[in-house]
Amino acid sequence: MAEQHFDLLQRDDRTQARRGRLHTRRGVIETPAFMPVGTQGTVKGMLPEALVDIGAQVILANTYHLFLRPGHELVERLGGLHRFMHWDRPILTDSGGFQVFSLGDLRKIDENGVVFQSHLDGARHVLTPEVSIAVQESLGSDIIMAFDECIPHPATRDYTALSTDRSGRWAQRCKAARRDDDALLFGIVQGGMFPDLRRKSADELVSIGFDGYALGGLSVGEDADLMYAMMEQTLPHLPQDAPRYVMGIGTPENLIEAVARGADMFDCVMPTRNARNGVLFTRAGRLSIKQARYREDSGPIDPDCGCMVCRQYSRAYLRHLYQSNEILASVLNTHHNLAYYLDLMAGARSALDAGTFTAYRADFYQRRARLADEID
Amino acid sequence: MAEQHFDLLQRDDRTQARRGRLHTRRGVIETPAFMPVGTQGTVKGMLPEALVDIGAQVILANTYHLFLRPGHELVERLGGLHRFMHWDRPILTDSGGFQVFSLGDLRKIDENGVVFQSHLDGARHVLTPEVSIAVQESLGSDIIMAFDECIPHPATRDYTALSTDRSGRWAQRCKAARRDDDALLFGIVQGGMFPDLRRKSADELVSIGFDGYALGGLSVGEDADLMYAMMEQTLPHLPQDAPRYVMGIGTPENLIEAVARGADMFDCVMPTRNARNGVLFTRAGRLSIKQARYREDSGPIDPDCGCMVCRQYSRAYLRHLYQSNEILASVLNTHHNLAYYLDLMAGARSALDAGTFTAYRADFYQRRARLADEID
Repeated sequence: MAEQHFDLLQRDDRTQARRGRLHTRRGVIETPAFMPVGTQGTVKGMLPEALVDIGAQVILANTYHLFLRPGHELVERLGGLHRFMHWDRPILTDSGGFQVFSLGDLRKIDENGVVFQSHLDGARHVLTPEVSIAVQESLGSDIIMAFDECIPHPATRDYTALSTDRSGRWAQRCKAARRDDDALLFGIVQGGMFPDLRRKSADELVSIGFDGYALGGLSVGEDADLMYAMMEQTLPHLPQDAPRYVMGIGTPENLIEAVARGADMFDCVMPTRNARNGVLFTRAGRLSIKQARYREDSGPIDPDCGCMVCRQYSRAYLRHLYQSNEILASVLNTHHNLAYYLDLMAGARSALDAGTFTAYRADFYQRRARLADEID
Repeated sequence: MAEQHFDLLQRDDRTQARRGRLHTRRGVIETPAFMPVGTQGTVKGMLPEALVDIGAQVILANTYHLFLRPGHELVERLGGLHRFMHWDRPILTDSGGFQVFSLGDLRKIDENGVVFQSHLDGARHVLTPEVSIAVQESLGSDIIMAFDECIPHPATRDYTALSTDRSGRWAQRCKAARRDDDALLFGIVQGGMFPDLRRKSADELVSIGFDGYALGGLSVGEDADLMYAMMEQTLPHLPQDAPRYVMGIGTPENLIEAVARGADMFDCVMPTRNARNGVLFTRAGRLSIKQARYREDSGPIDPDCGCMVCRQYSRAYLRHLYQSNEILASVLNTHHNLAYYLDLMAGARSALDAGTFTAYRADFYQRRARLADEID
């Protein structure tokens, strides 16, 4: 990890926003970047070619899901996740921690790791820092995440301190367990909603030394203002020359605000899950395609969007597909929503290159205000 | 209809198979041709670009479904079905008869037409020959089907005669109701499983005069041998210089045998519906991708298939997608099955061009016998 994987290309002069470039063994990721979520070895409804077409540079895959089904050993025997799912750009894998801790009564934590029951068949499994790294390496991940506990919100200071300390020890074990030196390994800052614990966690991870640093435990039910405050009080303690990944966020506003606070990478199921429920993001806000007002609407989802869906299909057609429960409803809605998220980050990168990020951020809000009649 | 729309390019010298070319206002259809079914204004799971990619020349849309939802007037106001669904090649529409008659107790037939209740909301509607033609013209259909009764099997001779006579009178009314002279209008031969009634129906339709002739009421539960016998006893009574469309069939074998008996056009939900249930067609027969034997199978669905799915994905991955209930399972399975059906007809056309149809037909069966260990 002495090697330098991240080029800080540009820093905005009025915000903390950064324009960067992360080098992985499967190519470069221009940041700020949004990573579509491909939980089970597929971004739901998207062909890999379509992901490339809309500018996806990297996707996220879920260790927990692939560990259980089809199993990481099977994926490894078949040549790794990239070959399995026909995707040759970078893949970031989460550690499995977030899903395991979401299991509630089905899991038990101790210093060693987590014992849990599969949500599929109830079978008992053990996930430890060492197992998580080994599983991620089996999958062929290009960016491996340390195994940590994602602390629920609200949580007491005592529990947060105890859990964050343990995640720190787990981070050390993850680094020691690493075998694949060509993959990048990111540490995850925890500390709940306590700024001093966040800072302590950040300092500890930096002293261990990782290729990148993530903020975990955000977007877990807290207000956006509190989320932004935690970013403001944590991101400055991370090195400028390493990428910063805020996990699991968020709305388009969340992304713009996180970029302004110095974050580089994001993932979220929001664009994909919303798409399948007929909720579509536009530069005016968002709309629910099932509404009767779109029944005869010959316009595109978003007149300012240049994606394949907006070029070729009307809201009326998309409403018909949704009402008819057609597969193409999910396919086209997902395509548009992901294109919107990726365009939002591509626009931020261009603005940072041009030194106009503040104007870009202002324009984002002004368009919404101007077009607000379209927002539900 | 004095105009000639069909070129008979080649006749096989050992079978009744024909190589033809049907001219429509939206381009040419090389026959024999399979038409993917796009019931609700979308071929389930297929982007129009993907349909073009696998060589679909024409698709079928269902009048009954589009009449009820979103409504043909709406589609017409939005510029017609082609624009609505972003498909600029020919569309053939069925008459709505088949679906309406499938409603059982929810419909009542008399000389005028059919009164039925919507399967969606129970609302009462009337479908007559005149309404059916008007709806199909509203949709912008390029090949319009006459409104007829698809007689169930088995049926008595008395009912079959009564129904076939009425369908004949309806065919006359359809021709009289036609307004869009640029679209083609096909009559439908009925007559159940009674060769003399089939012949009478064929003669009657030919004397009315249509741009093409369909065989309806086949693949309704009868044995394949009876189906083939009905084709053998009906197709020779249709003019050589008009296209012949055998509706609603069938398996790959059915298509090969129908081509050998002089049929030119086909539609069936078999490739698309089977795909969504994980049943995939191969040159060896068919396989059920959910089976455990494919868990670690790194090979393609069909090693002799050149489609995008067989080039890029393993059976193991497709099994994983199917088991995980992923959208891409339906998308990829449908893509392959339709590619297989379209390739089967493209191969038949090439063989007819080269005068080798008999060898092509023999090879179709020999491959299955040779590779039979792969058949479930």
